[in-house]
Amino acid sequence: MAVKVGKHTIRLEHTPSILSYASIVSKKEGEGPLACYFDRINEDTAFGQQSWEKAESKMQKDTVTLALAKAGLAPDQIDCIFAGDLLNQCISSTFGLRELGIPYFGIYGACSTMSEGMALGALMIEGCGLKHTVATTSSHFCTAERQYRFPLEYGGQRPPTSQWTVTGSGAVVLGNAVAPPYIRQICIGTIEDKGIKDANNMGAAMAPAAAATLKQFFTDTQTGPQDYDLILTGDLGQVGSDLLYELLLREGYNIKDKHSDCGLLIYDRDTQDVHAGGSGCGCSASVLCSYILPSIQEGRLTNVLFMATGALLSPTSAQQGESIPGIAHLVHLSSLPN
Amino acid sequence: MAVKVGKHTIRLEHTPSILSYASIVSKKEGEGPLACYFDRINEDTAFGQQSWEKAESKMQKDTVTLALAKAGLAPDQIDCIFAGDLLNQCISSTFGLRELGIPYFGIYGACSTMSEGMALGALMIEGCGLKHTVATTSSHFCTAERQYRFPLEYGGQRPPTSQWTVTGSGAVVLGNAVAPPYIRQICIGTIEDKGIKDANNMGAAMAPAAAATLKQFFTDTQTGPQDYDLILTGDLGQVGSDLLYELLLREGYNIKDKHSDCGLLIYDRDTQDVHAGGSGCGCSASVLCSYILPSIQEGRLTNVLFMATGALLSPTSAQQGESIPGIAHLVHLSSLPN
Repeated sequence: MAVKVGKHTIRLEHTPSILSYASIVSKKEGEGPLACYFDRINEDTAFGQQSWEKAESKMQKDTVTLALAKAGLAPDQIDCIFAGDLLNQCISSTFGLRELGIPYFGIYGACSTMSEGMALGALMIEGCGLKHTVATTSSHFCTAERQYRFPLEYGGQRPPTSQWTVTGSGAVVLGNAVAPPYIRQICIGTIEDKGIKDANNMGAAMAPAAAATLKQFFTDTQTGPQDYDLILTGDLGQVGSDLLYELLLREGYNIKDKHSDCGLLIYDRDTQDVHAGGSGCGCSASVLCSYILPSIQEGRLTNVLFMATGALLSPTSAQQGESIPGIAHLVHLSSLPN
Repeated sequence: MAVKVGKHTIRLEHTPSILSYASIVSKKEGEGPLACYFDRINEDTAFGQQSWEKAESKMQKDTVTLALAKAGLAPDQIDCIFAGDLLNQCISSTFGLRELGIPYFGIYGACSTMSEGMALGALMIEGCGLKHTVATTSSHFCTAERQYRFPLEYGGQRPPTSQWTVTGSGAVVLGNAVAPPYIRQICIGTIEDKGIKDANNMGAAMAPAAAATLKQFFTDTQTGPQDYDLILTGDLGQVGSDLLYELLLREGYNIKDKHSDCGLLIYDRDTQDVHAGGSGCGCSASVLCSYILPSIQEGRLTNVLFMATGALLSPTSAQQGESIPGIAHLVHLSSLPN
């Protein structure tokens, strides 16, 4: 049974497990420092498809299929899947997953999608009578750029605060097992908006949400950075990470020694020209499902707070002069059950 | 505790209740046959705002605020809210709800959003240790038309199969109480795609999903149309409703006498020039939260299957020659608990 702790945190008493996970990325990610950790690196960014959108759908479907295969489960053994992405109407997910026939809950959390899906998927196992659920998401540089910013052919200049959308996907299969990684707690994020309006500075827009969720989780659980081996944010990049440290220092929490950001891990910023780091739903999803989860599984990391962060804007809201709200959902992963 | 029944159905043993509900619509809906049931009819379709998108956000926020007031609950007493809408990146919901500070799960199910949110919100009460959750959605004729089809000023001709996007919003507050309406069961939908490509015929695109979910629910629960007072679909309109009857007849189910569609209830098709009926996330949400829920609350209807239906397309997927997948989630509402 799940138990509410404090204001926004839920403890999962039976502690669902991540039964399997998979990650697929493309060329640029395969040239980065995490290359050896990904399940597959597809050199063809079109994934053999006729459009970038179809490519992203294919990548997401392949990732889910691979995760299922690793768990030894067929699609019809999955009780439900939580999926979403950055594209209008989440078409990467719906078109990618339509053939699998898995009961489908579409979610939209921008780049917070992976932790949102994992939180909901874990709750379904914990208290809702389901045996197996899946959480997945993806992003693709070419679909995101042309939808959110400019046609690729335009060759627009990118400011130093901008981030590079990861072409990648991650998927986890959740269930009950006496094996790590376990999901022990979740903390549901709130929409935070500090008035940032620069659509080329997502890190600044998302940092307040990450700070709010982390502070709330520490308060709810009466713990602090010292109780965790790693605090892993989704895609704050360098600008957003620095802001997160500053915001939390004001609240009395120094997380700098415990913190990593998937957007800073996935590329080598010195050689890969990605400015402030990686971004996109697929950034945190692919890093978590390659580099991080094995360390928890094998006990090298005991307690990890995974917190994907999303910027809740659209080109329409930006054109209407709106600021950029952010959200961050937290999932407490552990090599030990509750 | 929630218990899985058959393949895609979950029975909620503790049977959460709908503690309160609210609906707000605009001028055209206020000229329709359900006018006397809505909580508010805002004659100003701009809701006093500077853009249609901001108008939709305002409408959704007002609806949630009204539902909370009816339940006597403040926003900080709500454990989480499930919200989504039709706009790119679901900005009606994120911008509408950001000031409330409620832990936020963004969902995307197109016009199936209301039953998706109610299903997840009910599961959170049933098995996940939460006391109060909210499900809400909205749509606005002017935001949807210009995003999905043509600028309003263009004055495009609409074919007979097209539907009219409802300007409306509905919200429910869920919790534990010994009072109807109860949520007894849910059935999670799968993505169904029969190859329909006409973006002006959403009813045909969604009918197969509605048929699949209803058939699955009947199979899982070993019940049939005779066991329910009303089978209420979201926004199939006339074309989709007729197709639904035909598809289910082939499976041995005659639902015609038990079926209504929110898209057919909300407008008078003889006088209101809406062609095949109403549509949009706000269609089923506003009809459920005005005309239907009081009948369950007061016992005039005992068992109702509410099934909002969504067409999972985007202009991008349509332009790339893709077909239109559909999805339908079912919520079994009742004046009696399990």
